[in-house]
Amino acid sequence: MAIREKVFDVIISCFKRHGAEVIDTPVFELKETLTGKYGEDSKLIYDLKDQGGELLSLRYDLTVPFARYLAMNKLTNIKRYHIAKVYRRDNPAMTRGRYREFYQCDFDIAGQFDPMIPDAECLKIMCEILSSLQIGDFLVKVNDRRILDGMFAICGVPDSKFRTICSSVDKLDKVSWEEVKNEMVGEKGLTPEVADHIGDYVQQHGGVSLVEQLLQDPKLSQNKQALEGLEDLKLLFEYLTLFGIADKISFDLSLARGLDYYTGVIYEAVLLQTPVRPGEEPLGVGSVAAGGRYDGLVGMFDPKGRKVPCVGLSIGVERIFSIVEQRLEALEEKVRTTETQVLVASAQKRLLEERLKLVSELWDAGIKAELLYKKNPKLLNQLQYCEEAGIPLVAIIGEQELKDGVIKLRSVASREEVDVRREDLVEEIKRRTSPALCIC
Amino acid sequence: MAIREKVFDVIISCFKRHGAEVIDTPVFELKETLTGKYGEDSKLIYDLKDQGGELLSLRYDLTVPFARYLAMNKLTNIKRYHIAKVYRRDNPAMTRGRYREFYQCDFDIAGQFDPMIPDAECLKIMCEILSSLQIGDFLVKVNDRRILDGMFAICGVPDSKFRTICSSVDKLDKVSWEEVKNEMVGEKGLTPEVADHIGDYVQQHGGVSLVEQLLQDPKLSQNKQALEGLEDLKLLFEYLTLFGIADKISFDLSLARGLDYYTGVIYEAVLLQTPVRPGEEPLGVGSVAAGGRYDGLVGMFDPKGRKVPCVGLSIGVERIFSIVEQRLEALEEKVRTTETQVLVASAQKRLLEERLKLVSELWDAGIKAELLYKKNPKLLNQLQYCEEAGIPLVAIIGEQELKDGVIKLRSVASREEVDVRREDLVEEIKRRTSPALCIC
Repeated sequence: MAIREKVFDVIISCFKRHGAEVIDTPVFELKETLTGKYGEDSKLIYDLKDQGGELLSLRYDLTVPFARYLAMNKLTNIKRYHIAKVYRRDNPAMTRGRYREFYQCDFDIAGQFDPMIPDAECLKIMCEILSSLQIGDFLVKVNDRRILDGMFAICGVPDSKFRTICSSVDKLDKVSWEEVKNEMVGEKGLTPEVADHIGDYVQQHGGVSLVEQLLQDPKLSQNKQALEGLEDLKLLFEYLTLFGIADKISFDLSLARGLDYYTGVIYEAVLLQTPVRPGEEPLGVGSVAAGGRYDGLVGMFDPKGRKVPCVGLSIGVERIFSIVEQRLEALEEKVRTTETQVLVASAQKRLLEERLKLVSELWDAGIKAELLYKKNPKLLNQLQYCEEAGIPLVAIIGEQELKDGVIKLRSVASREEVDVRREDLVEEIKRRTSPALCIC
Repeated sequence: MAIREKVFDVIISCFKRHGAEVIDTPVFELKETLTGKYGEDSKLIYDLKDQGGELLSLRYDLTVPFARYLAMNKLTNIKRYHIAKVYRRDNPAMTRGRYREFYQCDFDIAGQFDPMIPDAECLKIMCEILSSLQIGDFLVKVNDRRILDGMFAICGVPDSKFRTICSSVDKLDKVSWEEVKNEMVGEKGLTPEVADHIGDYVQQHGGVSLVEQLLQDPKLSQNKQALEGLEDLKLLFEYLTLFGIADKISFDLSLARGLDYYTGVIYEAVLLQTPVRPGEEPLGVGSVAAGGRYDGLVGMFDPKGRKVPCVGLSIGVERIFSIVEQRLEALEEKVRTTETQVLVASAQKRLLEERLKLVSELWDAGIKAELLYKKNPKLLNQLQYCEEAGIPLVAIIGEQELKDGVIKLRSVASREEVDVRREDLVEEIKRRTSPALCIC
């Protein structure tokens, strides 16, 4: 939880830096709200028992509840973040941070705006967060559903198979082209020629120059959808250059994303493993953030079908937690789980009342303080408690000190002790435990 | 959510001040874990549909999951807080902050310690939080399950009826003694004499002097359990005096608390309504925090029945949210939902690229900044956006300013504008939006 808090702090402060407000929605949704939104993964939804009343399910992600919330409240314009748990009846894989109950951290911009400005900000946010977390080098793959659909059309895939072929393409980050081709031909009924044609495209990736090259592609540029997608991507790259992150972005035609609701630009950030041999391409070790544009989802919940264009991103925090945890373990760094600044201790017996009085004074002054819940604890035990809990200071009460109106303040690390006048104790503790003077 | 964040901040900083670490547990528990822990309220538990695997329910509170967690992880000593949602199939009452999904904020101390020290700290925490929230005057009622049980015994209630009579007594804060008596006699089979005897006791409340008076009560002081309870309460009052909160505490024999698992001291904080006529007793308007000692619960989850004594408290935040919301509405105070410090705006057309460059510079420097997602927004619209969102500053880019290497910084409130050199802009924004110099 201590690590989680640190990661959340980074993410939330970035979301706030970009002017987002925070919302919350219930963990329940009507079962029908979730139906038909997640393609093949719908079988992973948890349902509640029918105990009377509406049929309910647990949310599967935060995007569908967000769209439902916008439609219900007739909101057409909002920039919000939402950090909450979602539920999937999946096979857990602890080491990879895959659980049945897990956090999502979503940032979305809803509203009708000029093209690619909010989309570029979403990518900027992703890069800011992944850089701040210092979890290693990363790359953001970008593509556009319209380019994929245009490409499928010119390759000869029938309209009805766009989504299922999209799912096959999506597997390219895990399995080889041969396997994906086999699935397309064997299971999904494409001809080998159509599959190979798709293969020629989806194995390409690059920067803005690849966008320009495809804009010259005689077939692809004749397809209205693909052309729109490519022109938007070109504009996106301009904005990403102004944001100083174009070098982190790769236009990757194999990126397809599993979810049904995307309608435009899609993206996914992967961490890069340092290559074993110099000159080799860095290896992606898995997605840590993803998102895209979904202009049709809100309309599905509006009785009149009014559309609210949306674009957003989701940070894969569970995976990030595991990475940070593993890194700290490797460094043998101990993370403090409390923030206590001082332990109120006594050197002799029969001083419980004095300890209670002092600790209460410190709490009232805003100092994070503890005492051992024993009438007559040994000084050694009190000092040991500080070592174990990482408490930096001990305020020691003794009979002589009480007479003199002082408290002995001991630094646990250096073992140095000084007498501090009781009325100066709060200031002295604050001075010693504040990292540095800062402007908040 | 903006109000919730402020309330949570107060609560979390108090919990941390008292040296607690934070834990989290899943929203699911095995159905059997929750069975037999909540008395009559068990019917309010939400169950998950049986989709294969274990039978699961949603947590009903945070105390039972905490006890299960301690037993499972063989922990015998921890001070933790937990802020999370719990679920009850109850009738919602929005204005009173009663929902089916709601937050609980729990702080508990587990471990074998000298009597009443952790119990006193729990009461201190309750008082600190309720004072900091500034939601009006409050009183904490205190009683002890052992005193109640001892009292029932000497009044002639059979052992098997202790818990059900306890439930009747618990209603005294909502209904009159006559009604409670009718329930005891009519529904629960006590004789009127036994009920009246109970009535003589439970209508008493006071301070430590009432504890001392009851210690002199010839019958009650002969009952082992009651005597232990009274002696502990006497000690508790000593500690509360040292903590400077004895005046907030009322020993109230009618306080019974509904839950089965309490074994010792119990408490409940109520807000006081200012009396309409002077001299009248202030009227309680409902519980905002509660808790008590439960020494047997962890043992119920341990295969060998090993006991871990626990004491804790729960803050009724939903009720507090409604109170704070109503107060702010009454004051017509508008709460900002974002923290944006500056809007990056332009005075002329064709400056989108310059706005993107500047806003990116500001984000990278940690400034909370926004821009309108339009290619050529009107200056008036940009200023209006600031008014609506409460953004205090506007950084205006113009062609002349670009040539001069400056940015026009405008205060939304005063409408004053000054030219700031671009390299000084970040510092100037920080200076203007930091409330005061502080030591964190």
